Amino acid sequence: MKLLALDTSEQAMSVAVMEDATLLAETTLNRRMKDHSEQLLPTIESLLAASGLGADDIDRFVVAAGPGSYTGLRIAVTTAKTFASTLHKELVGVSSLAALAAGERHTSELIVALMDARRGNVFAGGYQWTDDGRLKTVIADRHLALTEVLAQIAALGQLTVFTGPDALSMRETIVEQLGSLARFADPVSALPRASRLGALGRVAAPVADIDAFVPRYLRLTEAETTWLKTHQETGHEPYVEKV
Amino acid sequence: MKLLALDTSEQAMSVAVMEDATLLAETTLNRRMKDHSEQLLPTIESLLAASGLGADDIDRFVVAAGPGSYTGLRIAVTTAKTFASTLHKELVGVSSLAALAAGERHTSELIVALMDARRGNVFAGGYQWTDDGRLKTVIADRHLALTEVLAQIAALGQLTVFTGPDALSMRETIVEQLGSLARFADPVSALPRASRLGALGRVAAPVADIDAFVPRYLRLTEAETTWLKTHQETGHEPYVEKV
Repeated sequence: MKLLALDTSEQAMSVAVMEDATLLAETTLNRRMKDHSEQLLPTIESLLAASGLGADDIDRFVVAAGPGSYTGLRIAVTTAKTFASTLHKELVGVSSLAALAAGERHTSELIVALMDARRGNVFAGGYQWTDDGRLKTVIADRHLALTEVLAQIAALGQLTVFTGPDALSMRETIVEQLGSLARFADPVSALPRASRLGALGRVAAPVADIDAFVPRYLRLTEAETTWLKTHQETGHEPYVEKV
Repeated sequence: MKLLALDTSEQAMSVAVMEDATLLAETTLNRRMKDHSEQLLPTIESLLAASGLGADDIDRFVVAAGPGSYTGLRIAVTTAKTFASTLHKELVGVSSLAALAAGERHTSELIVALMDARRGNVFAGGYQWTDDGRLKTVIADRHLALTEVLAQIAALGQLTVFTGPDALSMRETIVEQLGSLARFADPVSALPRASRLGALGRVAAPVADIDAFVPRYLRLTEAETTWLKTHQETGHEPYVEKV
């Protein structure tokens, strides 16, 4: 099975072309999020060409489905949906945090992937490799205060590897609360890699309804929060479920 | 310090632009070695552009210096030498096997990087991470029979992680000789990554004489072997040291 995996959840953009478990081509750009919309399609084209493939040769499109930046998630998800829908191929959405966690191989410890969600909040998910090489969810992806995640981990009392580019810049707070329980991915491993995303997406079930597929934002936009505050009295259902 | 790291030792080509320990951009293409000469310069150009840099902004060029394929090594080493010499920048050569081994993080076990050298022979080097995060050499890079490396490792009697794309295709022979002592990198980690090469090259001493720098082939070419056979009586020094 040939796969194209793409991740623009955060600042780093990563695209990979794979054939089953084998990586054929991958590019990771770690500069500015606002470049993703310009760089995504040319990167996909050039990696397909380097792999001797056309878009129609891809059997499955795997996308990092969130959490992450609103704009970032929309770029990759819209691109993946457009390819899958137009070419009648499979679409798979994978947690952006699981894809980050999967960059940490050869550890049996708890892996916590973090993304900064501003104002002291983070997106966080906890994962662990099973003996048969599957990545299992230990703490479901959530949007919450950094101190709250760290309290949960302190309660577990086990060694934890933190990953994700944002986790490295939160090192001080994390070490303050967890001390020697906290370890950190090296800066290269902490970046999202579409090859890890593709490897997870290869064994996942495809999306049944491509048109209905949306990113997992895990929080409301500011506009939605404001709208809810001013319209709560009307009894409307919120457009996005509050978590 | 801004670095450009490049590796065309074997089938996979990898190029990375880094600023200190931070990866700015990386592409890995894993298709055909004969494409390296066509793809290397355009890949360098596009990664520099994506990083908002020109070649002259690079302070240090890091190249996978061998062992590997003769042609492959010459392409990357010549390119790196040309950049460093023309732009008056630093050049660093790093063992191609060390760069492969560095793809295996979070293991305290012996890491053996292997490359197929045909006729039952391999290029092999053994490495291990120290507690302070340096990759130290345990078995120096050599050109020898696969069975001989495996006998050495069996004598050590310790768990060993094999890496490198070729190691995965030698799995059967390795497991036959080492049984449960042998572990294997996953196919994505087993590929060379210029980001790993760059991280090793960042802390290495630069080459003193760029013009005199040559790849570390670790074996004679067939032409040289034949020449030696027919010219041994003349008493000439061999052009390449036999190892």
